[in-house]
Amino acid sequence: MDFKLLKTLCQIHAPSGNEVAMKEFILNYVEVNASKWKTKPEVIFGDKFQDCVMLKFGTPRTAIFAHMDSIGFTVRYNDQLVAIGGPKAETGYKLVGEDSMGPIECELLEDDGNLYYKFPRGIDRGTELVFKCDFREDDEYIQSCYMDNRLGVFNALKVAETLEDGVIAFGCWEEHGGGAVPYLAKHMYEQWGVKQALISDITWVTEGVPHGEGVAISMRDRNIPRRSYIQKIIKIAEESGIDFQLEVEGAGSSDGRELQLSPYPFDWCFVGAPEDHVHSPDEKVHKHDIDCMIALYKVLMERL
Amino acid sequence: MDFKLLKTLCQIHAPSGNEVAMKEFILNYVEVNASKWKTKPEVIFGDKFQDCVMLKFGTPRTAIFAHMDSIGFTVRYNDQLVAIGGPKAETGYKLVGEDSMGPIECELLEDDGNLYYKFPRGIDRGTELVFKCDFREDDEYIQSCYMDNRLGVFNALKVAETLEDGVIAFGCWEEHGGGAVPYLAKHMYEQWGVKQALISDITWVTEGVPHGEGVAISMRDRNIPRRSYIQKIIKIAEESGIDFQLEVEGAGSSDGRELQLSPYPFDWCFVGAPEDHVHSPDEKVHKHDIDCMIALYKVLMERL
Amino acid sequence: MDFKLLKTLCQIHAPSGNEVAMKEFILNYVEVNASKWKTKPEVIFGDKFQDCVMLKFGTPRTAIFAHMDSIGFTVRYNDQLVAIGGPKAETGYKLVGEDSMGPIECELLEDDGNLYYKFPRGIDRGTELVFKCDFREDDEYIQSCYMDNRLGVFNALKVAETLEDGVIAFGCWEEHGGGAVPYLAKHMYEQWGVKQALISDITWVTEGVPHGEGVAISMRDRNIPRRSYIQKIIKIAEESGIDFQLEVEGAGSSDGRELQLSPYPFDWCFVGAPEDHVHSPDEKVHKHDIDCMIALYKVLMERL
Repeated sequence: MDFKLLKTLCQIHAPSGNEVAMKEFILNYVEVNASKWKTKPEVIFGDKFQDCVMLKFGTPRTAIFAHMDSIGFTVRYNDQLVAIGGPKAETGYKLVGEDSMGPIECELLEDDGNLYYKFPRGIDRGTELVFKCDFREDDEYIQSCYMDNRLGVFNALKVAETLEDGVIAFGCWEEHGGGAVPYLAKHMYEQWGVKQALISDITWVTEGVPHGEGVAISMRDRNIPRRSYIQKIIKIAEESGIDFQLEVEGAGSSDGRELQLSPYPFDWCFVGAPEDHVHSPDEKVHKHDIDCMIALYKVLMERL
Repeated sequence: MDFKLLKTLCQIHAPSGNEVAMKEFILNYVEVNASKWKTKPEVIFGDKFQDCVMLKFGTPRTAIFAHMDSIGFTVRYNDQLVAIGGPKAETGYKLVGEDSMGPIECELLEDDGNLYYKFPRGIDRGTELVFKCDFREDDEYIQSCYMDNRLGVFNALKVAETLEDGVIAFGCWEEHGGGAVPYLAKHMYEQWGVKQALISDITWVTEGVPHGEGVAISMRDRNIPRRSYIQKIIKIAEESGIDFQLEVEGAGSSDGRELQLSPYPFDWCFVGAPEDHVHSPDEKVHKHDIDCMIALYKVLMERL
Repeated sequence: MDFKLLKTLCQIHAPSGNEVAMKEFILNYVEVNASKWKTKPEVIFGDKFQDCVMLKFGTPRTAIFAHMDSIGFTVRYNDQLVAIGGPKAETGYKLVGEDSMGPIECELLEDDGNLYYKFPRGIDRGTELVFKCDFREDDEYIQSCYMDNRLGVFNALKVAETLEDGVIAFGCWEEHGGGAVPYLAKHMYEQWGVKQALISDITWVTEGVPHGEGVAISMRDRNIPRRSYIQKIIKIAEESGIDFQLEVEGAGSSDGRELQLSPYPFDWCFVGAPEDHVHSPDEKVHKHDIDCMIALYKVLMERL
């Protein structure tokens, strides 16, 4: 598989709350590529959806949620930083951004839980800094910042190529408490009757879910989805012959949480490749798990 | 009072996220018994309500929320367990469940906050285990796992016998962060204009709310309901002559939290018998408090 | 500026969940004063809005949210107190309230995190106590309990005098987890298409936001609003010539949180004067910051 698109996605500046660049990239990508897709989707965006984008294919039964935003840092006062989402923070990490005085490439400094930047000049209050992208690919692995969740977006765009019936929702704020999923869910449910969802996102390599053994189907994390829906998905996965792994966690969360708590009766399931070095500049995913993720999504969107 | 129905309810496997068995029991119970009730309710359920059930009697003004789900444990990797809700976890507790290899009765092992099962064979990943039911009844008390909230369900089914106008909503996920109340509230409010609620659930025996002195009316827990509604309920309770106790807590939560946070203007009040040994296999409730709970609900549903 | 109205507001008993007295004060104030305002608003309140009040001026594009409720304490059992919201609690603070036996003025007692009252007689279970108001004004500062958020309400009522198009929403429960904003947002969005909001509330004096240097525009707190909206507001503020300060925090929250999480696509921004001695009986705000707050709201409501 060609990962140029993924590399491009990983470099786009779009921390939670400022997903405009991702929105514009996706809108442009769809405009350029949708004519080659099996089904041309309706593209839904605009002020009523803030910076989100939805692609509606045919008569949708199931929605893919892929969040566009990333973790990062906001400049506070003096040289202080405040986290956006839950980034790993180690002294020496390279951060990039831009303020009124121009582009910034600086270094992160962690001291007893407090975060600072090292840069020759002061940076404007409120400036967002994100990890500098160092995209690495070998025969087996891809490693980069923001595999979470640009790989989830990549997956959705790959699935889009052959999708006949379904919705793909590119959302905002997932890394920082949410805010977009409820109104996306509202629209899908009220306009199209959609109440099944797949969360296209990246999970953790753990003792139970190693690299290279297939895409993870999460039976639960901090939240517990409806069991009958999970069982349906597992059954389809088993019949597909695609490698997958069952995940069971007590912590961690996703767009699924917001669907769970929304006033719409959504069934949801997190299905995604596992990564190592979570929320660091070095998120690492096995290529086989990416292949399985895309393959399983194609099957699920057909059969659910 | 005959507690056979309560005993049956306490034995039904329905941890948060998998309330199907409770749903089916209730649907069947209503089918068999509703003809003897004063008013035959409309039974509302199906995919738009996941595994929830609503009974609509006459022209409802007030809804009873009784959650069907219980706390429990999910099998993680190896012999590890992850909590469903907030169960008390002591080594030696008996747990039951079922996986692809058949029925399971095993033992809980708690070690420094980590949870494990003891069983001769490995248990399928994602299997749910719940407390084994040991239902005990004497002249004064009932003791069993899952009085919280099968007693709340029992109360609702007793109130159903004579209810003329009202809704009873049997909900899901209460023990594990919620997820059903918002869409149930939406339906009630939009379809029937209902915006008054009673939370039929079980609370704690404390220094201020002892066994045997009547049903507890909670003036607040972690959440604070609208005071004017609570005062209305207290006034009706005072006039009824039924034993009740006022509860004031800074912690604890219920379906009321989800009503409070929903985009519908619900007034809600937790009214329930207090129990000892909360969230353990030995939840203990005084029979007089159960009598008072049922009696007060009947009055409240008439007068609110 | 004359601060008599603010003084009156600071003395009104309206802890979270019991905002009736504030509601009635505002309804009466509007009835008496609206004839002198540039635009006479439609006054929206009643059971569908619990104890909230909305004023609709002309054709609204933007809503001001000003919460009416305050922090305080609930009497638990014996002489124990439970917090309403997050009040500062120091032994010796004067508290006032009323129960079935009459008015109460007592003293707070803090012992190792536990809270008690000192009063010659027992106080009814569930009674609410609030800080006794000691309103102090000098040339530069106002100091009193409940500047948060009676000053936010004061600001909204001042802005009302000349407002042509806009909504002012006086809400409930902000200090204690929320509950009103979602249905207020629902109404505004569905009925009037409003999806821009300003949070009229009081923030913290910090190393980055001192007294007397103008109203604070919060770029983020615990929640991160949409950046493009914040930038629009900053641009208008810059062009206005009114003193303002940019705030960046990782903690703290407001009505904005509930807008963020609601199923409506609201853009929101916290704009408010900073105070010292937060959540104590001695909240202190610089008069220049109050002037700037009112002035900036007038401009923003016109230009947004």
